[in-house]
Amino acid sequence: MSFRAEGSVSAEERRGNSGAGNLKERCQKKSAEIIAAISSCLPSGKEKYALHEPAFAGKEWQYTKECLDTGWISSVGKFVDEFEVALRKITGAAAAVAVVNGTAALHIALKLAGVQRDDEVLLPTITFIATANAVTYCGAVPHFVDSTEETLGVDPDKLEAYLEDIVQRESGQSINRLTGRRIKALLVMHTLGHPVDLEKCAALCQRFGIELIEDAAEALGSEYRDRHVGSYGKLSTLSFNGNKVVTTGGGGAILTNDLELGRTAKHITTTAKVPHAWRFYHDEVGYNYRLPNINAAIGLAQLEQLPDFLRRKRVLAERYAQKFRNVDGIRFFSEPQFAKSNYWLNALLLDHTDEEELLRDELLDRSNAAGIQTRPLWEPMHTLPMFHACPRMNLTQAESLHKRLITIPSSACLA
Amino acid sequence: MSFRAEGSVSAEERRGNSGAGNLKERCQKKSAEIIAAISSCLPSGKEKYALHEPAFAGKEWQYTKECLDTGWISSVGKFVDEFEVALRKITGAAAAVAVVNGTAALHIALKLAGVQRDDEVLLPTITFIATANAVTYCGAVPHFVDSTEETLGVDPDKLEAYLEDIVQRESGQSINRLTGRRIKALLVMHTLGHPVDLEKCAALCQRFGIELIEDAAEALGSEYRDRHVGSYGKLSTLSFNGNKVVTTGGGGAILTNDLELGRTAKHITTTAKVPHAWRFYHDEVGYNYRLPNINAAIGLAQLEQLPDFLRRKRVLAERYAQKFRNVDGIRFFSEPQFAKSNYWLNALLLDHTDEEELLRDELLDRSNAAGIQTRPLWEPMHTLPMFHACPRMNLTQAESLHKRLITIPSSACLA
Repeated sequence: MSFRAEGSVSAEERRGNSGAGNLKERCQKKSAEIIAAISSCLPSGKEKYALHEPAFAGKEWQYTKECLDTGWISSVGKFVDEFEVALRKITGAAAAVAVVNGTAALHIALKLAGVQRDDEVLLPTITFIATANAVTYCGAVPHFVDSTEETLGVDPDKLEAYLEDIVQRESGQSINRLTGRRIKALLVMHTLGHPVDLEKCAALCQRFGIELIEDAAEALGSEYRDRHVGSYGKLSTLSFNGNKVVTTGGGGAILTNDLELGRTAKHITTTAKVPHAWRFYHDEVGYNYRLPNINAAIGLAQLEQLPDFLRRKRVLAERYAQKFRNVDGIRFFSEPQFAKSNYWLNALLLDHTDEEELLRDELLDRSNAAGIQTRPLWEPMHTLPMFHACPRMNLTQAESLHKRLITIPSSACLA
Repeated sequence: MSFRAEGSVSAEERRGNSGAGNLKERCQKKSAEIIAAISSCLPSGKEKYALHEPAFAGKEWQYTKECLDTGWISSVGKFVDEFEVALRKITGAAAAVAVVNGTAALHIALKLAGVQRDDEVLLPTITFIATANAVTYCGAVPHFVDSTEETLGVDPDKLEAYLEDIVQRESGQSINRLTGRRIKALLVMHTLGHPVDLEKCAALCQRFGIELIEDAAEALGSEYRDRHVGSYGKLSTLSFNGNKVVTTGGGGAILTNDLELGRTAKHITTTAKVPHAWRFYHDEVGYNYRLPNINAAIGLAQLEQLPDFLRRKRVLAERYAQKFRNVDGIRFFSEPQFAKSNYWLNALLLDHTDEEELLRDELLDRSNAAGIQTRPLWEPMHTLPMFHACPRMNLTQAESLHKRLITIPSSACLA
C-alpha cells in the first residue's frame, strides 16, 4: 500500500513546498522509531501481536463441557444466572441483564430510558458504530458531541455551553430549537476503557432534564472516583465481544440500579413472555436478545480471571508509559486523574503537527505490515454517509484526536 | 392446578346443563387414555420427556475445543464460514448468512424484501411471537391471516378471496383499502415443520405484487415437492434455538437464491463495515447480528448429524401415527400430501367438540404433571394486547386449531 492515498495532497504541498520527499522520509523515520519503541515493550518470539486477544486459561473448558454434557446450551440455564450475579458483584449494579451483545444492550438501554421515535440523543462522534446505530433502532436521531483530550470521551464543559445555546426548555424537557426535536438522552462512551467525567455529565443532564446512559462496552473493570463505571447512568451497557477484556464470544449486558428497570430489561429481552406452566403469552413487543447459556458459561469463567487480566493490563500500560516518556512527538495516553482505567486498548497520541495524519497512516501501514496490530480511532460518526445530515456541535477536538491517535497491542498475555 | 380456570364457564354449563361433574370426569378419563397412548410410544426409564431436547453426540466437543484452544470464539472464524457452506448444501439456497437467532434473521429478511415504516405484512395469527415482532422492528404493521388444517399454516385460498375483497391495486402494488397502507409482503411460517402450500402462496404473491418470505425457523430438513423449503420465498429464515432440530445455543440464518441480496444480508448483519486493513468505515446503518464462531462450531457438528436426526424423528412420528389410529376423538397430525416434513414437534389434534378446549387444558395439565412435556400452540397473535388493533381477516380456523392442538415429546433420541 502506498504511503498516502493517491491523489491526496500533503500539508507541505498545500503550502506550495516541494519538500514532499523529505516529508515522506521524515514520516518513515519517525514511524520506524515509534514501532521500535512499541516492540521493545512486547515479549519476543511471537509472529503476530494482536490488538487484543482473549485468554482461556480458567474454567472455560470445564463450564462449556458441562453445558454440552447436560444439554443446557441455549437461552435458559444456570450459567446465565451465575454470570449476571458475578456482573452485579463486580460492577456494584443492583441489576445486570445478560444479552446477546453490546449493541442489543444499547438498544434496550435507550428504549428503557424513554427514547422515542424522532427524539434526539446526544453522543460522541468518536465512538464505535454501535452507539450511533442503536439510536436509530429507536427511530431517534443521533446528535453528535465533541470529545476532550483529557478523557477521549464527551467534553462536558463544551457540551454545556453548546446546550445553553441551542436548548429551549419546555415543561422540564430540553427542545433543540434548531430542529424542534426533544433531546431525550446523553449517551456517553468510556473510550478505550477511560471513564468520562461522570459527575460533570450527570450534573449537566440534571440541569437540562436529560437522561444519562453510559456505554461502558470497553470499560469493564474501570473505576470513576473509586466506583466501577456504570452507576451514574440511569442504565449502562457492557460488551463481551471477542476483543474485550472479558469475552463470551458475543455478548453484552445492561446494568441499572433501578430494580424495576432491571426487571423490565429482563422481560423485554426475553420476548416479553409471561411465565406460565405451558401457555405462550407475551404482553408487549419484546426482543430475542437472550445470551445463550454456553456463552454465559465462558463469560463466567472469564470473569473469575478479571482481577488477573486487569493487573496484567496495567503492567503492560505502565511499560508503554515509561518507554514513551523518552520518545519525542508522541505520548502514551494515561488514565484521567479521577479514574482508574482498565486500559482496554493502549493508545498513543501524536503531537499536533501539519503532518500528523500522514504520520498516523504511515505508522498504521508499517506496524500492521510488521505483525504489530494497530488501529486508528473509528471514523467520526458525522463523517459517515448515513449520519451526514444529523445535528452536531463543533467537533474540532474529536477530529484532531481521530487524526492523531493509534491503538497498540494490549492483551493481558503480553504483560 | 384446577382442571379449568376459576370462574370459567364450561360449554355444558352455558347450555344450562348440570352435567359439569360428568364433563370433568369425561375429560379426565379421555386425558388419561391419551397420555397412556403417548407413553406407550416413548422409551421407558426416563423421569422426564421433554418436548424437544438436543443431542450432542457428534463433534460438538471437538469443534468447541478447537475454538477455545485457538482463541477464535467470537464473530470471525472458520466455523461461521463452514456452517454457512453446510447450510447452503443442505437447503440448496445460493446464499446462507448465519446470524445470532431466528428473530434477527426475520428482521433482516423483511428489511431486504423492502418492508418499510407503515407498510403492512401478512402473516399467520398462529405463529411464534418472533414472526410478528420482527414486522414491528421495521416500523411495519402485522396483518393477521387464517390457517388451514391441511398444513397448520397460511390458507392460500381463503387469503386470496380476502385480498380480492380488500385490495386496491395501484401501480403494481397492493393497497389495503381499509387502512390505506401498502401490503408489502406475505410472511408464511412452516408450522411445527410442516410446509405450507408454497406454489399456491407464490402464485398469490405474484398476482398481488407482494413479496413472499418463508419463516422456516422450525422446518430445517423439511421438503416441499422434493425441494427443501426456503426456495420459494425471496428470502427465508431458519432458527437454531436450543429446542430446534439442530441447535447452536442461539442462532439463525437468512437464506436466499439472490446472491446480491445474500451479500447485502451479510454486510448489514456485520455492522455494514467496509473491508480495509485498518480503517473503521461503515457505509449504512447496520446490525450486530453476527453468529459467534463458537456457536457456529456447535452448529456445524449438529448439521453433520441432521440426516440421522431426521430419520429418527420420522420413526417416532410413525410410531405415534400408528398408535393414534386406534384412539377415538383425537388424531396424529401428518405431513401434507405435497410435503416431507421434519416432524419437528409432533402434534395431536382433538376432534371438534363442545369440550375441546377443556379437554386440551386437562391434557396439558395432567401430562406435564406426569413428566411428559406437552404444549398448546402459541396464543394467536391477534389476541395479544400489543396486536389487538392490527388488521386481520376472519380467523376461525386458526382459533379452532389453537383450541384443539397439543404438541408432544419429539426428540430424536426418543426413537
